[in-house]
Amino acid sequence: MAIRNAFYAQSGGVTAVINASACGVIETARKHPDRIGKVFAGRNGIIGALREELIDTSLESEEAIRALIHTPGGAFGSCRYKLKNISENQREYERLIEVFRAHDIGYFFYNGGGDSQDTAYKVSQIADKMGYPITCIGVPKTVDNDLPFTDCCPGFGSVAKYIATSTLEAGLDIKSMCESSTKVFILEVMGRHAGWIAASAGLASKSEAEPPHIILFPEIPFRREAFLERVDFCVKNYGYCVIVASEGAQHEDGRFLADTGNKDAFGHTQLGGVAPTLANMVKQALGYKYHWAVADYLQRAARHIASATDVEQAYAVGKAAVEMALSGKQAVMPIIVRDQARPYRWHIGEAPLSDVANQEKKMPIHYIRDDGFGITQDCRDYLEPLIAGESFPPFEDGLPKVARLQNELTEKKLKTEFTL
Amino acid sequence: MAIRNAFYAQSGGVTAVINASACGVIETARKHPDRIGKVFAGRNGIIGALREELIDTSLESEEAIRALIHTPGGAFGSCRYKLKNISENQREYERLIEVFRAHDIGYFFYNGGGDSQDTAYKVSQIADKMGYPITCIGVPKTVDNDLPFTDCCPGFGSVAKYIATSTLEAGLDIKSMCESSTKVFILEVMGRHAGWIAASAGLASKSEAEPPHIILFPEIPFRREAFLERVDFCVKNYGYCVIVASEGAQHEDGRFLADTGNKDAFGHTQLGGVAPTLANMVKQALGYKYHWAVADYLQRAARHIASATDVEQAYAVGKAAVEMALSGKQAVMPIIVRDQARPYRWHIGEAPLSDVANQEKKMPIHYIRDDGFGITQDCRDYLEPLIAGESFPPFEDGLPKVARLQNELTEKKLKTEFTL
Repeated sequence: MAIRNAFYAQSGGVTAVINASACGVIETARKHPDRIGKVFAGRNGIIGALREELIDTSLESEEAIRALIHTPGGAFGSCRYKLKNISENQREYERLIEVFRAHDIGYFFYNGGGDSQDTAYKVSQIADKMGYPITCIGVPKTVDNDLPFTDCCPGFGSVAKYIATSTLEAGLDIKSMCESSTKVFILEVMGRHAGWIAASAGLASKSEAEPPHIILFPEIPFRREAFLERVDFCVKNYGYCVIVASEGAQHEDGRFLADTGNKDAFGHTQLGGVAPTLANMVKQALGYKYHWAVADYLQRAARHIASATDVEQAYAVGKAAVEMALSGKQAVMPIIVRDQARPYRWHIGEAPLSDVANQEKKMPIHYIRDDGFGITQDCRDYLEPLIAGESFPPFEDGLPKVARLQNELTEKKLKTEFTL
Repeated sequence: MAIRNAFYAQSGGVTAVINASACGVIETARKHPDRIGKVFAGRNGIIGALREELIDTSLESEEAIRALIHTPGGAFGSCRYKLKNISENQREYERLIEVFRAHDIGYFFYNGGGDSQDTAYKVSQIADKMGYPITCIGVPKTVDNDLPFTDCCPGFGSVAKYIATSTLEAGLDIKSMCESSTKVFILEVMGRHAGWIAASAGLASKSEAEPPHIILFPEIPFRREAFLERVDFCVKNYGYCVIVASEGAQHEDGRFLADTGNKDAFGHTQLGGVAPTLANMVKQALGYKYHWAVADYLQRAARHIASATDVEQAYAVGKAAVEMALSGKQAVMPIIVRDQARPYRWHIGEAPLSDVANQEKKMPIHYIRDDGFGITQDCRDYLEPLIAGESFPPFEDGLPKVARLQNELTEKKLKTEFTL
């Protein structure tokens, strides 16, 4: 069979382990020089393909590629850019074909979440609809854990481990201080539509008395009175109250809690944040001293406390994507299939991109406790294996070592520039 | 010599390694059964002494005490409670003597920052002024790194490592996304009066182009125009801008940046936060997409990414405190003395509590770059050894294992209750 080059791109919000998937793709491709020539990585994701900005990963040493496995962020740059349908924007697809043809690209690996798998699916259609032969394989990734079919999404397990660890640690801090100082602590975590990340905080607790005492999920409409009552109960009974709140926590009418509706002196909408909003509410209604934290990007970048299971799975889906491509699959995405929970066993399966694209996996409602403020044993059983194992990066001068890539672009072959 | 019991208490904001100092005190005391009987820990710090709530640490296993070395927070409870001068509140000192006498306490170890060393000093005075013989030794602790004499404060190195690591990791995240998404990221860190913690973020960067691009210190009055200019420069030249801001960052007139002066619909002052304030400023002036994080307690509780140097020093000051007591010292505090920077060598020295109390060590101005937005090589040379080495806790089911103490109170001997 002919040797053809591959295109790999990172898409959407990055994670602590998306580079481990990149490592899986590149290392596996390098093992098949009889089938795959160079792996070009899109500079800033699919934008790099449109602009013909192709990073030549063949110039990177084995060591540098290996170091991707312990490097957070997206080493080649990612983007938030969704291709329209072929019928709506043929120009983009024609440009992709033009670039792919110029660089003899026969494999397309797209590493991202739901929107990105939609893009991968659309690109796969150019093979049929526009006559350019290309093998398209999706590589799953998202901290939100909301891709369908797969048991979990690479990237999620590490955020979950970070959030559970941080909740455990900060919980011990508040507990120490609550007699004479801070009594209420609020940690705001990611998850605009699904409470997976907030749920993971629940792993920190072994009993009702231990933090987190309250979890706020986007799935459960916020009830002010019940919330305040529970805060007060915890402070009175345990001495303190630790709350983990999804950024997507919302009122019954769908308004985000973070949307305070307040304006500053210039009439600009005041910046929200669920954590400060709740802190204010607690202060006003109950008068307790509070502290709050917003983990934001720290949580999804925290490679230093990544889950070993997550790192392994992230690498495995990258590797499997290349193997699927080589075995003649088209428009599929490798997924994680759970064989059993204890001890955790999983294998790689596959799902068609046409089914994956734009579907969101919701958190099952039986994962949330009846009172709406915590997780059930079922949820715990699901989550626990995903944070198992540590995969500490190497350190140098006290800090994690990260891959230092050259990220050299291959020479452009096209005369035309493309405007996004 | 007679065998007498010891009292140990944790005071002020806790750290990732204050329990390592507790471990040093208790393990060392246990090695001298001919001099020290039981170590009683104050439940919630000095409040426990006043209330005669004394945790009998002799009931804890060797293993449990050892586990303190990798457990964040204050295992016996801490407090924010400052004793007045003896002349102002003789009642409190009389109560202390009463409790100490009832439990034959001859050693007083007080683990805290500047205010707490002041308390330790005052307690030492009851030996002379009120005729109760007790040996008082301070044990240094504070994430703020603001105790005088000592090269650094146990607790600081671990926060510094956490902040530098988080800046490095989140920086890679933003860099990946900046082409089509977030361009400005702001991380708010602790440090109301001194910029030590903010400065530590500077360790993440090896060049001007790398994050953090801007550090805001409480020591440098905030200049809006210069700040916005620099943000804009970074975005235009590096594609993105990572800012690390001290919670204590302030205007020229001393007003905190976080003090927005805004009121909500009920006339309550709106909660600030430096990070959201700066984010709003950037958005309004430059229009860049931003994200912000507030690490708050996560930073000082992050035992999972503690500095091995810090853990070692925290243990060493606990151990030294007991040894100093046994060698007849009075009203001193063990300190870290830096022998050399590279390779880092240090030994334990001592400082009189009378000099330590209520003194604040400021960051030397030559540690801050001329433009006010970064650290100098001198600062880097000072900080680097403090974050050196990793001291990962053991993990179980994916989470750090922490000490589970019984914290059983010894039977009260006094008939009177004490009201704070």
